[in-house]
Formats: sequence, C-alpha cells, structure tokens
Amino acid sequence: MSLPELPPSLAASPLPKYLEIYRRFRAAIDQGQLRAGERVPSVRALAEELKVARGTVETAYQLLTSEGFFQARGQAGTVIAEWSAQRSISAPLPEVPAAAQRGVSLPLQLGLPALDAFPRKLWARLVTWQVRQADPQSLALTDVCGYAPLREAIADYLALYRGVPCAPAQVFISAGYCASLGLVCDALDMAGQRCWFEDPGYLHARDFLAHEGVELIPVPVDQDGLQVEEGVRRQPQARLAVVTPSHQSPLGVPLSPGRRRELLAWTQAQGSWVIEDDYDSEFRYKGQPLAALKSLDLDDRVIYAGSFSKMLFPGLRLGYLVVPQALVERFERSAGQLHNRNAELLQATAAAFLAQGHFTRHLKKMRQLYTVRRGLLVDALRVHCADLLRVDPQAGGINLLARLLVEVSDQRIAQRALAAGLAIQAISAWSLEADQERGLLMGFTNVASQEQAMAIAQQLREVIQQTMAS
Amino acid sequence: MSLPELPPSLAASPLPKYLEIYRRFRAAIDQGQLRAGERVPSVRALAEELKVARGTVETAYQLLTSEGFFQARGQAGTVIAEWSAQRSISAPLPEVPAAAQRGVSLPLQLGLPALDAFPRKLWARLVTWQVRQADPQSLALTDVCGYAPLREAIADYLALYRGVPCAPAQVFISAGYCASLGLVCDALDMAGQRCWFEDPGYLHARDFLAHEGVELIPVPVDQDGLQVEEGVRRQPQARLAVVTPSHQSPLGVPLSPGRRRELLAWTQAQGSWVIEDDYDSEFRYKGQPLAALKSLDLDDRVIYAGSFSKMLFPGLRLGYLVVPQALVERFERSAGQLHNRNAELLQATAAAFLAQGHFTRHLKKMRQLYTVRRGLLVDALRVHCADLLRVDPQAGGINLLARLLVEVSDQRIAQRALAAGLAIQAISAWSLEADQERGLLMGFTNVASQEQAMAIAQQLREVIQQTMAS
Repeated sequence: MSLPELPPSLAASPLPKYLEIYRRFRAAIDQGQLRAGERVPSVRALAEELKVARGTVETAYQLLTSEGFFQARGQAGTVIAEWSAQRSISAPLPEVPAAAQRGVSLPLQLGLPALDAFPRKLWARLVTWQVRQADPQSLALTDVCGYAPLREAIADYLALYRGVPCAPAQVFISAGYCASLGLVCDALDMAGQRCWFEDPGYLHARDFLAHEGVELIPVPVDQDGLQVEEGVRRQPQARLAVVTPSHQSPLGVPLSPGRRRELLAWTQAQGSWVIEDDYDSEFRYKGQPLAALKSLDLDDRVIYAGSFSKMLFPGLRLGYLVVPQALVERFERSAGQLHNRNAELLQATAAAFLAQGHFTRHLKKMRQLYTVRRGLLVDALRVHCADLLRVDPQAGGINLLARLLVEVSDQRIAQRALAAGLAIQAISAWSLEADQERGLLMGFTNVASQEQAMAIAQQLREVIQQTMAS
Repeated sequence: MSLPELPPSLAASPLPKYLEIYRRFRAAIDQGQLRAGERVPSVRALAEELKVARGTVETAYQLLTSEGFFQARGQAGTVIAEWSAQRSISAPLPEVPAAAQRGVSLPLQLGLPALDAFPRKLWARLVTWQVRQADPQSLALTDVCGYAPLREAIADYLALYRGVPCAPAQVFISAGYCASLGLVCDALDMAGQRCWFEDPGYLHARDFLAHEGVELIPVPVDQDGLQVEEGVRRQPQARLAVVTPSHQSPLGVPLSPGRRRELLAWTQAQGSWVIEDDYDSEFRYKGQPLAALKSLDLDDRVIYAGSFSKMLFPGLRLGYLVVPQALVERFERSAGQLHNRNAELLQATAAAFLAQGHFTRHLKKMRQLYTVRRGLLVDALRVHCADLLRVDPQAGGINLLARLLVEVSDQRIAQRALAAGLAIQAISAWSLEADQERGLLMGFTNVASQEQAMAIAQQLREVIQQTMAS
C-alpha cells in the first residue's frame, strides 16, 4: 500500500509534516482508497519513503490511532479501523491546530471573558503591591495545596455567594480546570476507571480525561440536563461523573432539581463521586443564580471545581477544587506527588482581589456587560442569519448556541469559519455518540460594538452559504 | 489480625490519621509482629475498628503498597509483601511530611538558592513594568509551549553560555523540573517503559517518575559518574536515561568525558533518549564550568532540562526543556494535551531578566557568594564535627555532602535533625539498591554568617551523638 495523491514533497505543504501525513490518510479514508482492515505501512517504511524522521510518522499514527482511524493489532501491525470511514465524515480535518494551541484569540472565541473590560490597572496595582512587599521566604517553594490566604478567600467567597460552605483545607489551588482534573484523576486513581460524561459535553475536559486513560461513558443530556437514569442503565458502577449543573456545557440548560436529587442519590448508593464544573454559574442574566449542586450534597460526594479563567482571565492560570472531607488527605498526597505548585505572586494577587471585594464588583459589572454584548450578537444574527440560524434561549453563561435551520454540517461550517478568522465551534464535535445535535457555539463576551456584531453576522452568513454551496 | 500497640484513640496522635495508621503498620513490620504473606484487614473493617473514614485507611494502604510493604493479591486481598521487613530497615519513617510539603524552609534545606540575596527590588521593578504595559490580549490563554520571548531568551542564553545551540521552537517552558519530566513521560509514552536512573540519584525525580509508572533501572554511580557499561549490562533496551552530568546529584562528581561518549554511543545504537538534568551547572567554584552533555550530542538524542528554581527562585515555578528536532512535534502535541500553560506575566518577567543581562550578572554574584557560604559551613563542620564527618571535596553545586566517619544510620540522623529543625537529608535514602553510601546532604546557600554556621554545626554534632547513643 502506498499513500494516494502524494505531492512531490512534503516540504511543499504549509502544514507541519506530521499533520500533512495525518491529512493524507484522512483523505484516503474519506475517498475510499483505504478500507477497513487494510494494513498501513510500518512507521519505518513510511518514514523512509517520505524521507522524514520516524518520530514524525509516529506522531501522525498516534493521532490517527487516538482518533480511532487506525487500530493497533500488536504483532499483526496496524490496520484501518472498522468504522473509520463513517467516523471520518463526522470529524473535521484540523485546519489550523497550531494557531488554536498558540492561544491567538479570534472573534467569537469560546470560553474567554471580555478581555477589554478586565480592570488591568487595578490588577497591576495589586500585583505591584504584592511583589514589592514580598519577603525572601516568599521566594521559596509554595504549598502544593495552594497559598493559604487564597484558599481562605475562596472558602469565604463560596460560602457567601455559592452556598458552598467549606474549610480552607478542602480548597486545592491548581493551574486551571485541566490541572484540577489531573489532580482528581490522580487522587481517585481514575486511569482505566469509568466516568459518566455529558453527551454533548465540554470538549477539552473530554479530551483531557481520555488522555489520562479514563474510560468515558457518554450519558445523554436533555432539557433537564444529564439523564441520570440513562447513566445508571449504561454503567451504574462508574466511579465518577463530571457534570456542569449551572449551564450545561454546551447546551446551556441547568440540571433540574429532580435530576440533582437522582444524581446525588446515585453517588450515595454507589460510593461514587461527582465533579461539579461550576465554570460560569456567576454569569446569569435572568432570575436568581442557581445554588451549586455542592450546596445540596449532604453526603459529601461532590468535588466542586471552579476557575478564575472566566471570572478573571485565562492567562492567570488559576483554578481550584473543593474536595470532600474524606478525600482531603488523599488530595494532599496527590498534590505532593504531582508537585502541584503555583507561583505565590499570582495566588497572593488573586487572594487580595477577592478579599478586597474587587471580585464580586467585577462579576456584577460583567453580568451587565455580557447582557449587552449577548444582545448585540443575537440581534445581528437575527438581522443577517434569521433564515439560517435560531439562537437557543439561555439564561446565562458566556457562550451562545445557534441551531442550524438548514441542512448542512456544522463541522464543515466551523472549519470554513475558522479559515475565515471566526473561532466558531460545531456542537456535533462536542458529542461522543451519534450527532443528533447540530449547531454553532460562539463566545459573545468580546463582541464590543453593534458594528462589530453586524460584520461578524454578515461574515458568518457568507460562510454558511458557501458551505451549503460547496 | 489486629494492629499492635493501638493507642486508645487515633485522635491522640499529632500526625494526620492516615500517617498514624501507616506508621503503626511500619512499626508492626519492623518489630516482626506482621510477617510476609500475612493478610491485612480490609479497608472497611479497619476503618470501622478505628472509627475513621474509609478514605483514610485507603490512603494509608496506598502508601504502604506504593512503598512495597503491602502487596495486592486481587480477590485474595492484600498481604504483607515478601521483602517488607528488609525494606523497612532501609526506608525511614516519614517524620513531618506535611511540613516538607508545605515548603517551610529550614536551615540547610536542599535545592534552594540564597533567598536573601535575590535582587527582589529589581525583580519587582520588572514585574511592575510588565504588568503595567500588558495589553488585553496578554490576558488570554498562553502558548502551551511557552511564551515566545522567553523561549528566545533561553535559546540565546544556552547557545552563549552552555554551548547548546538550539532554535526557540525546541525550547518548552514548564512549571518546573517535575512538570518537565511529566511532559517527557507523556511525549515519549514512558508509562511501563524502562529508564536508567542514577543510583544514588535525585530523590524527587525518582519518586515522580515512579509515580508516572516508569520502570526505573538503577544504574550505579562511581567517581566518573553513571556507570554506562553497567547500565548496558542491566538493561540495554531502556528507552530513556536520566543523568546529572555537571554535578551528579547527590554525589557531586561530573560525568567523565569517556562516560559521556559511552552514553551518547548507547543512545545512538539503541535509538534511546537521555534527559540531561543541568540543574546547577552554573554554580562551579573552581576551574571552568563543564560544557553540557547536550553540546556533544551530534545525533540529537539528548533532552536538556533546565530550571529557574535554583538560578532565580523556586517560587517562580518555571523550568524548561530543549528537545531534539525530531521530537519537537511530539512535544508540541503533548504540551497541548496536558494543557501545559504558564502565566504570561512571570514568563515575560523572566524573559526580560535574561534579555537585559541581569541573569548572568546574578549568577556571577551567586558564584562568589556561594563560595563564601560553602566555606562557612565547611569550616564550622571542621571545628565541631571533624571526628564525625568528612566533607566531600566538590567543585560546584549548591549542596554539600558529608560522609559519616562513625557507625550510625544516616537516615536516623536525618530524622532526628529534622525534628530538631535542620533539613538534612540522608544519602542512603537517595539510593535504590543496597545503601553502600552513607552520608548527609546539606544545602549551604542560606548559611548567611559564621555565627549561624557554627550554631548549625554544633547542633548537628549533638544530633549525631544523640543518634549514636540511642
């Protein structure tokens, strides 16, 4: 077997070599030139043929295997996987993964707060004060569990504003949500263990958990959030469930009171645990914010995960967990073994920001601002895309979900949009099983003017129409 | 079976409960009350007996299992391991692990730079400048590979001062040496793979790699550093070797030119990789600093690991790797999957510190200061401990190794010293196999005066004498 449509040289491609190899295999599978069960060339042979390092081919093969297009058969070599052709249709070719990794923020980028509205001067003043009054001891190694004043400030905040009373010793500081998940995986020894995961659900968490070797059990989501009964039917003995109770990520619905009770009853009966990813509960624009699931957790089975990425800014790299009393020692050990340390300066600054009341004032301002900015984008989509998209009503969050009213792949739209400079995501890419869901996810927090909103909506209209025509 | 010597209640112990349980099992094994093959009570049963949470007992059991005292036998339950009694003699009981985790820095603490001599005002000025001129975009997600100007500044520094020419794209920023090791383990898929490890060797790296599931092959160290031939004899097909070529950690000897050649020849023949932990090469007090192993690495098999923990300060949480060209793409992917991001503010400050020449000036000053401080401690030990200790001659580094001239366990001394407030470490605890090595490791960088050095040496004398008498 040799690769179809080889351009004269890999060097002609603007992509990294491994990605070019990956794309060629994907194309060959799409076009039916490679069929299920067919054996792929050895890493060594292909590297020689293409005159690239073996590591390059290996990386491409790993990517293809991890995405389910290849299947390793031990001594028998590696073959094209059974369902690869089917899968290939639903999974988009990565267009500019490097840019995504590099953190370039594009219009509509998900998961960002309003970067222009962060009180940078105030923050700079606090940083300056902290760094000037730092004593020599503050240069030494920080506590693996987190800087004590920050743990205290978070415990105070959660008790007052989220109905989550906890001791500072239960609060563990991390370098963001994925680092928090890493700590949970280590402490609960999750490698090879089963975990309920919302379907559709937060893409980055899913990828990270899969990478950590967790066996994800997709559990469908409806208008009341996670279908607990279905989870029990599929895998009653999962060790963990990861949920987004305030606004389900990405559908935006809250987990209903009944489902909350069912979920907690399951954890109690099974001795299992829940991660409550409370990533954007503070941003609710109508009605009262819902109490955290953790506030109902009488049996202390819920691990509460918060992050400052959306409340302050993602470049801060600070998140936290509140862990059940019974798990504190286990998490302390894991934090020590993972050498889970964060710089004291930024922890101390965040602690001051919370303790001095800036945090709650900032959130209040952002709630008002986000109501306006969401409105700008919704109105612009109504003007330019009313026949193509229907915006899901949603009471909060920082992302907007628009359902497609026309027959076209949301992933193909997202690909074209990205190429055109709009960081839209396709909801079907967030699904683990058959993609009943089709729609576009957009971050509206950085849509700063009506003019900008209109320009974006117009550009999006063109992208959708071009995708339909192609 | 019930636990021997149960005090009336666990609450009476000053230790965390899991640690108290751990210590009781260790004591029972030491005293021969528990023998190899004997079954230990179930977690549930013991938790009920002791009236503690099951998680507490589980944590203790995990610790005992991970340290090889317990052995899980699946359905048959857990038993005392075969070689547990023998092992127990060589492994010290943890005395105050919580304090160690918390980063309290005690006199003689290893691995710290001189905290009082760091230019805090200059650093504060740079931080202030960086945070004041930060634009909104700098608040967004940072590059998973590291902040570009810092990668460039490191590449420039290494080419000039360490004879390691590399492209900025080969430099990966991490949150310190363990985070660097985590990235290597992921990129090289090291779980379950074999790795040569210096014996004795750097304790924290050893624990971290073991925790990551790497199979460590101990390779003895002599006056020329790692015995490469012995490594080849024991495990020629290891995928990786971790070495400290500048000053072997902890023995302080440099890896000889002959051994360097042997090591590189092995990597080339086997297609294996080397991590060069160049943790303190800049601190050399006599003669020229040795060129890095990486500078001889014509086949590009060496992964060079550096850290700012000892060159600047450990609370900064910044380290870096220089990876071979052939591995760059693989490391980029791993960095993305691990969400390996560090705050931009501190990376930008470190970049400015390097680019403006402060870094090399600071290292020069520290070389002079450390020559003085090492002298203070060596002289004080000569005055007070000449009959008990012989200080190893050593041309560099930030730790001092003193051999015991008397027959007494170095680990028992280290335990007593820690209880007395001296953060000494026993070299035998850094050994994987039989402890031929006995000696005390001390950090001298924070010994600030003759008075302090004399007081420390006097206190150490008392500790050693008490240990001999007990």
